[in-house]
Amino acid sequence: MSQPQLPEGYTIRRMEAADYDKGVLDTLATLTTVGEISKNDFIEQINYWNQNKAIYNPTVIIIEETQEIVGTGMVFIEKKLIHNCGKIGHIEDISIKKSQQGKKLGLFLINYLTDIAQKNNCYKVILDCSQENIKFYEKCGYNKDCFSMAYRFKL
Amino acid sequence: MSQPQLPEGYTIRRMEAADYDKGVLDTLATLTTVGEISKNDFIEQINYWNQNKAIYNPTVIIIEETQEIVGTGMVFIEKKLIHNCGKIGHIEDISIKKSQQGKKLGLFLINYLTDIAQKNNCYKVILDCSQENIKFYEKCGYNKDCFSMAYRFKL
Repeated sequence: MSQPQLPEGYTIRRMEAADYDKGVLDTLATLTTVGEISKNDFIEQINYWNQNKAIYNPTVIIIEETQEIVGTGMVFIEKKLIHNCGKIGHIEDISIKKSQQGKKLGLFLINYLTDIAQKNNCYKVILDCSQENIKFYEKCGYNKDCFSMAYRFKL
Repeated sequence: MSQPQLPEGYTIRRMEAADYDKGVLDTLATLTTVGEISKNDFIEQINYWNQNKAIYNPTVIIIEETQEIVGTGMVFIEKKLIHNCGKIGHIEDISIKKSQQGKKLGLFLINYLTDIAQKNNCYKVILDCSQENIKFYEKCGYNKDCFSMAYRFKL
């Protein structure tokens, strides 16, 4: 798929333990509740994802000069039986810092994660979004597919 | 969550290699294209899932007397950062053999997979469905949440 460019001075790469001090949780908080995550919790999470590298691809966009993380996203790769033991990618937890929106970072991030899924031989990638984000994902080449249902446990 | 009963003589358990000869792929074919999967392919897939047991929970409903598999479903557990390093369950590839529909096997299966997610401390479970299946999933305690978008790669 065609790839828009990142602005100069921005890089995209896999999330790593040192990102804790580069504002990764602040960026994620643009999306939803993050909670109190200690540096140890964060490192454990990164280690868990790294132990399952064939599945989890946590990704960040970072400004090189300031080493500030301004975007996050995940694609994980699910191995199925259907479609000849096919694989699909699930895109989750896309977040772009409010002050950085309007620079097409989200579009770049979605294309990048979709490319990871393609390189992993997935036959499709899916993601959930609200009504107001459908247009954005259509610009990324996605089509409305079906409905997402949720069961939330009482905590 | 409340659990309906399986009919007498039916059991639910994790999918295993020997299920290849018990009609598991025929049951899956109720859902979608399965393709030509050899016994070796199948065993490799089961091994892969078993090597990643904390993530993948492939599940079957089987009739004890005939050892025929009549239902399949998966819940996989995703570890996130958001919601205090929270986990969510993804239910995928629910299939009940046509001749066995109307016995509430689907309802049982969904509740069973949802319980697996709860025991794994997930804060929610999500699944995708078509418009005509929304009512069924509402009976299982699920609510319409958002839209699912898909990007299909040209093969």
